[in-house]
Amino acid sequence: MRHIYVIGIGTGNPEHVTIQAIGRMNAADMIFLPTKGEEKEKLASVRREICERFVTNEKTRIIEFAIPQRKTVDRSYVESVNDWHATLARTYVRLIDDLPEDGAGAFLVWGDPSLYDSVIRIIERARELGAVDFDFSVIPGITSIQALAASHRIPINMVGKPVEITTGRRLVAHGNRADSTVVMLDGEQAFSKIDDPDAEIFWGAYLGTDDEIVRSGRLGDVAADIVKLRAEARERHGWIMDIYLLRKGRDFDDL
Amino acid sequence: MRHIYVIGIGTGNPEHVTIQAIGRMNAADMIFLPTKGEEKEKLASVRREICERFVTNEKTRIIEFAIPQRKTVDRSYVESVNDWHATLARTYVRLIDDLPEDGAGAFLVWGDPSLYDSVIRIIERARELGAVDFDFSVIPGITSIQALAASHRIPINMVGKPVEITTGRRLVAHGNRADSTVVMLDGEQAFSKIDDPDAEIFWGAYLGTDDEIVRSGRLGDVAADIVKLRAEARERHGWIMDIYLLRKGRDFDDL
Ligand SMILES: C[S@@+](CC[C@H](N)C(=O)[O-])C[C@H]1O[C@@H](n2cnc3c(N)ncnc32)[C@H](O)[C@@H]1O
Ligand SMILES: C[S@@+](CC[C@H](N)C(=O)[O-])C[C@H]1O[C@@H](n2cnc3c(N)ncnc32)[C@H](O)[C@@H]1O
Repeated sequence: MRHIYVIGIGTGNPEHVTIQAIGRMNAADMIFLPTKGEEKEKLASVRREICERFVTNEKTRIIEFAIPQRKTVDRSYVESVNDWHATLARTYVRLIDDLPEDGAGAFLVWGDPSLYDSVIRIIERARELGAVDFDFSVIPGITSIQALAASHRIPINMVGKPVEITTGRRLVAHGNRADSTVVMLDGEQAFSKIDDPDAEIFWGAYLGTDDEIVRSGRLGDVAADIVKLRAEARERHGWIMDIYLLRKGRDFDDL
Repeated sequence: MRHIYVIGIGTGNPEHVTIQAIGRMNAADMIFLPTKGEEKEKLASVRREICERFVTNEKTRIIEFAIPQRKTVDRSYVESVNDWHATLARTYVRLIDDLPEDGAGAFLVWGDPSLYDSVIRIIERARELGAVDFDFSVIPGITSIQALAASHRIPINMVGKPVEITTGRRLVAHGNRADSTVVMLDGEQAFSKIDDPDAEIFWGAYLGTDDEIVRSGRLGDVAADIVKLRAEARERHGWIMDIYLLRKGRDFDDL
């Protein structure tokens, strides 16, 4: 039977790939690389660099494929994602069908496949379509949360306390209700819209790449600076990917 | 100045180490390995295997050190952890002081240094003691959350929804309030004490090691089995480390 590896590759620093990821890339007959659509050139170049540096098996072929645009007209966000997954599942079937009958293929996932990523879901849908028989396994990768914490040299949680991981949209709706709140997928600078000036923010953009920027401080002191810095960086690069941790209280303050 | 690398090494599977972690281990004059106290033999053997397999620099020395017992008499949990960090900070100072003046040392951390781990906090305290001057950096590692998700081949979050990471103690107190709740540090099978039979549980123990066990299903159907399986495994091995995800709802159920 065909086998698919869903491989986490980290979020910008090629040295964040694991030994397992390198092993599976080299065990694949084909590595499927997205090239168009939602894909940013910088992300594509990190993927290419990882392949060039770590794929040493000469039999492994790199197969590029285009990702369709997500249609957003006349549908909710959730409907839009659902339709897009359905379309991509058909693309995956086509790609997997090109593998030799006992061959292996690999999809490289930004960060870790379990965190705000759709490849596992699309793979499951591709299997449900039933047009090509295959099994799959998942290889973990370093997430942008870990890249953020490493660059700031901080723990994400306060001692023994919970962490919430959420999106910009939901931060605006619910506020930073946990002691530690990690915000991803934030296109609206949600940190500048909540009312908690004493929270600490640890912010980072383009983490792991040459363009990495980090800032931290009391939200009331640094929020405006980060909004400005983010707008400038986004203007300069044409795109941005950023993430942050909001923390309140101190370790042992319930001592 | 002396430099310390705080290196995440994954949670049991030696192949989860990253290229960056291997690079930093080999850049260290000394790798400090805990050997006693809270340390389980299995964990120590994973650490040793990682060193044997990936440390190729003959100048890198492995320095073992004993971790003191955490005192729990006459103090709260938080006080107990606080005191224990203070004691360990003095141990770290002693170890770091043994490095050559421009030398590098490494502490290997189970999983990722940012997640329910104390090494970063102890390093910060060791710096505050002021007895030896050093800088440090953090190298991310694959967490047990990612190992769990990879073994079950699942995303942790529902599409666009938040995730809460919490402890067994707090799950009992607050229930599984998020759509996705990851529970760690659970010595009391908290999943069997909450009232949500329709939640799905994805459970795993000894993840990444030869002894890995995973189970999943509707909580109402599998909770009792997991309690039994966990007790047997714990009895057989003399210890256990487990983690689970509780999920409610389905993707696109708000479509
Ligand atoms: C679709 S999610 C993918 C997350 C990815 N699977 C992971 O494990 O980090 C994209 C979001 O991840 C965060 N992100 C990913 N890479 C990043 C980077 N290099 N720097 C900052 N944030 C990043 C941003 O919040 C971005 O909106
Ligand atoms: C002190 S925390 C350390 C977490 C670690 N820093 C990480 O990144 O996963 C220990 C908890 O992590 C989880 N854990 C760590 N390794 C595990 C493994 N191999 N299998 C299952 N659970 C594990 C368990 O919930 C355990 O109680």
